[in-house]
Amino acid sequence: MPLPQSKIQNPKSKMLLTFLTDFGTTDYYVAAVKGTLLRLAPGTTLVDVSHEVPPGDVETAAFLLAAAASSFPDGTVHLAVVDPGVGSGRRMLAVRTAGAFFVAPDNGLLTPFLDDATGVRAIERADLFLPSPGQTFHGRDRFAPAAAFLLRGERFEELGSEVGDPVRLSAPPPQRHAARITGRVIHVDRYGNLITDIPAGWLPHGPCRAEVRGHATGLRVTHYAEIPPGEAAMLPGSLGTVELSMNGEDLARRWSAARGATVDVRWNGS
Amino acid sequence: MPLPQSKIQNPKSKMLLTFLTDFGTTDYYVAAVKGTLLRLAPGTTLVDVSHEVPPGDVETAAFLLAAAASSFPDGTVHLAVVDPGVGSGRRMLAVRTAGAFFVAPDNGLLTPFLDDATGVRAIERADLFLPSPGQTFHGRDRFAPAAAFLLRGERFEELGSEVGDPVRLSAPPPQRHAARITGRVIHVDRYGNLITDIPAGWLPHGPCRAEVRGHATGLRVTHYAEIPPGEAAMLPGSLGTVELSMNGEDLARRWSAARGATVDVRWNGS
Amino acid sequence: MPLPQSKIQNPKSKMLLTFLTDFGTTDYYVAAVKGTLLRLAPGTTLVDVSHEVPPGDVETAAFLLAAAASSFPDGTVHLAVVDPGVGSGRRMLAVRTAGAFFVAPDNGLLTPFLDDATGVRAIERADLFLPSPGQTFHGRDRFAPAAAFLLRGERFEELGSEVGDPVRLSAPPPQRHAARITGRVIHVDRYGNLITDIPAGWLPHGPCRAEVRGHATGLRVTHYAEIPPGEAAMLPGSLGTVELSMNGEDLARRWSAARGATVDVRWNGS
Repeated sequence: MPLPQSKIQNPKSKMLLTFLTDFGTTDYYVAAVKGTLLRLAPGTTLVDVSHEVPPGDVETAAFLLAAAASSFPDGTVHLAVVDPGVGSGRRMLAVRTAGAFFVAPDNGLLTPFLDDATGVRAIERADLFLPSPGQTFHGRDRFAPAAAFLLRGERFEELGSEVGDPVRLSAPPPQRHAARITGRVIHVDRYGNLITDIPAGWLPHGPCRAEVRGHATGLRVTHYAEIPPGEAAMLPGSLGTVELSMNGEDLARRWSAARGATVDVRWNGS
Repeated sequence: MPLPQSKIQNPKSKMLLTFLTDFGTTDYYVAAVKGTLLRLAPGTTLVDVSHEVPPGDVETAAFLLAAAASSFPDGTVHLAVVDPGVGSGRRMLAVRTAGAFFVAPDNGLLTPFLDDATGVRAIERADLFLPSPGQTFHGRDRFAPAAAFLLRGERFEELGSEVGDPVRLSAPPPQRHAARITGRVIHVDRYGNLITDIPAGWLPHGPCRAEVRGHATGLRVTHYAEIPPGEAAMLPGSLGTVELSMNGEDLARRWSAARGATVDVRWNGS
Repeated sequence: MPLPQSKIQNPKSKMLLTFLTDFGTTDYYVAAVKGTLLRLAPGTTLVDVSHEVPPGDVETAAFLLAAAASSFPDGTVHLAVVDPGVGSGRRMLAVRTAGAFFVAPDNGLLTPFLDDATGVRAIERADLFLPSPGQTFHGRDRFAPAAAFLLRGERFEELGSEVGDPVRLSAPPPQRHAARITGRVIHVDRYGNLITDIPAGWLPHGPCRAEVRGHATGLRVTHYAEIPPGEAAMLPGSLGTVELSMNGEDLARRWSAARGATVDVRWNGS
């Protein structure tokens, strides 16, 4: 029976789901979730964000999802399962924003989307869940059916009750002082670039110096190829924040810097 | 020319293929097979199971395919190419069950599906095969055209003659005694969980103790988060069998346990 | 507004894009490009070639793309972003052949397609590019919109001006002498097979001997399973060139051979 038109939020021609996990790609877990999605929401286009999130690393998952999601068309459903608390009492969340839906455990993974959310619901519709031999694979047995529910255009509000206190990751925001900025490395990418949380627009017009773990650079460029061999530099990155990089070399390894490292930018002799 | 309706087993709107190999993801092999499939069966939705099966490891491939396949909708074609005998006289198989088709070398990979098969055929239609410069890439040149044949809804029986003696992997089944169960680790997953072949329902109601390679645990839980730090536990896994796990740590590494390791469960002082 | 029929080169039902990068799969980069493509060319089928090209390795990217592209249906758009010069003055290219479109930086990556090109254009349509906070992610901000332009069936010629001098990788072609052939290893695959640039048809009918880095074999076979344990052999590979392989072992490791190694084939006592 066709759904009444008034219930269609995502017409089938636009059914698009992104999928982010820490499942890795050597197991059957990713495929089992995708099969379930295609069984319950036939015709969906599936796009992997990554399945190589370090096991249980909710912060990295939140970063990757926020960085990727803005590129997707309106109406996309984003499913993210990094879920060290699977099977425990932790809630499952669905978040709606102006342009998208997000489905994930209530463990902070959806923090970047909460401020702009137009709805935050607990996923409580046990009738949607698959009968399951255990409590270890909610990605397949509970999250996939909930995401399929949204992909089919069913009403967001019917997933469960409103949640007023979703879990939030507490990241200290970058600090802006007279002649100094303090921030953090929020991601180290495949090339060893250090992506910081410092808005590129905060940097002074004149010279400044960025320091991470006792290493520093005062060089400012706009693209990698400009950086002389063996040197580090600051540049405006693809998310609008300051990035610290080398040209064809791995700065994170060179400076022994990882996610969370403090980034200090100073100028005018501060 | 449209196919006569009577020949359509998989209407185009449902053309779905899963793909499992040991090709890795650094080469062009996976893409060449997918391009061939999309050329010969346009509109097919492709889902990767994994391409990280250890080279030539037919047992792992069989496990992953069996674990993933049951999540997919009826009519799915599952293509699995782990084929150390490529180019030799080994047969190529197509297996039909009530809900799906499977295409793979006749080397035991399809063992999990043979008992429920409603048809087992050798792939012998040389007119389907692509002209090929060598005998090293049947994934692209023979298996992909055979899978595309099924995706297009052509008749299964026309692939080749019936096979009465497909190669089977010989796995000793788990043993159930009065106060003891003996089984094996059939998979180690990304997190280091030990997935066994012991049905979770075989465990006694009272206390018991599982032993693998001289290490043991008597703790029984239902989900990972319940396990105290540094301890191992038994729990019912996502395939309905007993899983041995730690909470956020890699038990396989801790216990030096790999696929094939014996699992002994005892109770009542046995 | 529907496009006028005369502008449709790729009707929507065939919109197919392959995607090759050195972005890795642990970051958000691949997903951000895919989201952009699906936003700008909805309904496109996306197929990954690989995202594991070693960072900046244009030669490997060119090899993989050439090896994969011929399997895809006519009208496929191939997007390849291995771009150490991102943000610099390097040009961006679109190449058209009889059967496909290619989009990549002008750094030699498209060398294999230039001889058969029916058009080579610089991508200069700044109105297509996305507003961007930095100059580090042209894959998302410039290449994806250009590929989407072609996927939508817009006119190739409108991307920019003709390019008469695209950058070419200079690979010395294999040499054929009276009783000797000299070539190179052009790829080492996942299994450790050495793929050479020597056409398999150049080998003599009688016995010959292939030498790489001081190691040699005189064994000629047609498939891997024929090779005795511990031995190396020559065989016709899946691209029509000579491949050097072991059976279930990694020859590249055994012979310490990498891409670029010289391959010498001799016969008749030469």
